[in-house]
Amino acid sequence: MSEPIIGITMGDPSGIGPEIIVKAFADPAAPQRQSVVIGDAGLLRRSAGLLGLNLEIIEIDTPAQARFAPHRINVISVSAFAADFPSGHLSAEAGGAAFEYVRRATELALDGQIQAVATAPLNKEAMHLAGFLYPGHTEILAELTATKNYAMMLVAPDLRVIHVSTHVSLMEATQRVTRERELTVIRLADDALRRLGLSRRKIAVAGLNPHAGENGLFGREEIERIAPAINDAQQEGIDVSGPWPGDTVFMKARRGDFDMVVVQYHDQGHIPIKLLGFDTGVNVTVGLPFFRTSVDHGTAFDIAGTGVADHASMEAAIALAFALL
Amino acid sequence: MSEPIIGITMGDPSGIGPEIIVKAFADPAAPQRQSVVIGDAGLLRRSAGLLGLNLEIIEIDTPAQARFAPHRINVISVSAFAADFPSGHLSAEAGGAAFEYVRRATELALDGQIQAVATAPLNKEAMHLAGFLYPGHTEILAELTATKNYAMMLVAPDLRVIHVSTHVSLMEATQRVTRERELTVIRLADDALRRLGLSRRKIAVAGLNPHAGENGLFGREEIERIAPAINDAQQEGIDVSGPWPGDTVFMKARRGDFDMVVVQYHDQGHIPIKLLGFDTGVNVTVGLPFFRTSVDHGTAFDIAGTGVADHASMEAAIALAFALL
Repeated sequence: MSEPIIGITMGDPSGIGPEIIVKAFADPAAPQRQSVVIGDAGLLRRSAGLLGLNLEIIEIDTPAQARFAPHRINVISVSAFAADFPSGHLSAEAGGAAFEYVRRATELALDGQIQAVATAPLNKEAMHLAGFLYPGHTEILAELTATKNYAMMLVAPDLRVIHVSTHVSLMEATQRVTRERELTVIRLADDALRRLGLSRRKIAVAGLNPHAGENGLFGREEIERIAPAINDAQQEGIDVSGPWPGDTVFMKARRGDFDMVVVQYHDQGHIPIKLLGFDTGVNVTVGLPFFRTSVDHGTAFDIAGTGVADHASMEAAIALAFALL
Repeated sequence: MSEPIIGITMGDPSGIGPEIIVKAFADPAAPQRQSVVIGDAGLLRRSAGLLGLNLEIIEIDTPAQARFAPHRINVISVSAFAADFPSGHLSAEAGGAAFEYVRRATELALDGQIQAVATAPLNKEAMHLAGFLYPGHTEILAELTATKNYAMMLVAPDLRVIHVSTHVSLMEATQRVTRERELTVIRLADDALRRLGLSRRKIAVAGLNPHAGENGLFGREEIERIAPAINDAQQEGIDVSGPWPGDTVFMKARRGDFDMVVVQYHDQGHIPIKLLGFDTGVNVTVGLPFFRTSVDHGTAFDIAGTGVADHASMEAAIALAFALL
């Protein structure tokens, strides 16, 4: 098999996506790797010009046509859009374009032409204006690939977490804690760690309630749903323990006791990652037919077009996509 | 009025309380301040001997009798206990003694003989064996002082948080989010910051749901209960804003945007504090007739009596009690 190629989707054309991509390709510290951009060559040239970056931006039709070289970006242009996409401007056209980049990348991945996808940020409001009513990338990818069992993993330098639930109310999150879902997420965690090449794959499961329920005193989900799922996973040979109190498990993981923490709801995972990960946090969708990594920030319309956007998270997302292959 | 005196309760006699107290008094870096210990002089002498610390440990009957000097500990002995309290041993006697130290400290504070209380850790299980069925210090103090509106504040070097709820299930925590309780906690936050002497008292309120509910998409508590309470507090002249997404508000507070974050449930406040505060986190009960500060760790029976326990949090709790006076 030839070397794997990853596809980088350009995100909302009016956001910081084009800038952080050209910056990532121009960064002398970034290793040379086989990646193609799915987006718009003209907009990448605009960003490179704005930033004074000397990059060769080449349009191709398929990933197989790409010739990889330093300071060269191979772009598959998805150009059914006439708009000029001014920076920082919310529009249905930009939201629709961002969606189409993701759709094309998914087709290429399902067809085996690329092996993973790294996504620049899209703007949900713009995408909704275009009529694509998804909460975000994850749900688009799940639907386009007919995937039921997937989860959001966040990766920071010292910590990895994977979520039982994400974009639902906290009340609903407590109801999403089922034995079946817990087991699914533990399995996805173990698989992701295997893909990352870790021989030790120690997984901790955080409790839902304070002090992991304190033996049922502050809630019974740990006893009735989480602990049985941990036991199920242990029977399958997975190295998993818990439920651990949510307020101390991240310290333990950070100092090396665990390789991944299963978290029960959005903020339980996002609070420690955002505190520890700063600009280099990466969001990974696991459970799809291919891995998808993403920057851990938004379109930043307020600074788009000024050139100040930091490409550290984009670079980290690209690097992690390769690490997962 | 004479200089304020704080009372330090010794905590469970079989835990690390006696050790961290003698270490705090012996620490040459600790400033000299007027504090008395409520506990047991014999056990403090045992700990000082174990650690080879040259301390003068004097029994007194009332705080007014104390004569303060370097390396001297004034102790009000509460000695209705015949046990010898071996280190690391869970017992009803030790649990009962720890409870009595807190009761005596509360009496002294209500009587104006001491002005604040700093508590070493008690062991809940031991206290329950003794028949005192409280979840912890906070509930004891609330009952003994007939206080209804109180809250747990946590203080780390870069961050302060105050909790809408703490030791209840996450499901129940979502139900504790009422307009009335939110307003009470915002007022308690403002008052605590005033007591700390801050002229700027910028308070942020974290949302309950992911992305602070994202305009009602992931829950309506922010719209129906939290935002109206913020508005109520602003009408009273309090400098408060929100609800802010729970996963980014702590970064903002840490970099100086806010002086306190109102958090909606136990782990939302404890996760960032434990990640940032390490050994120097302090727990403060606000809303009582007097301030009570506490170490942010337990009795550590596994290391009690070995002398390795770190007294940084005890020292920080004592220092914060003085700062609040």
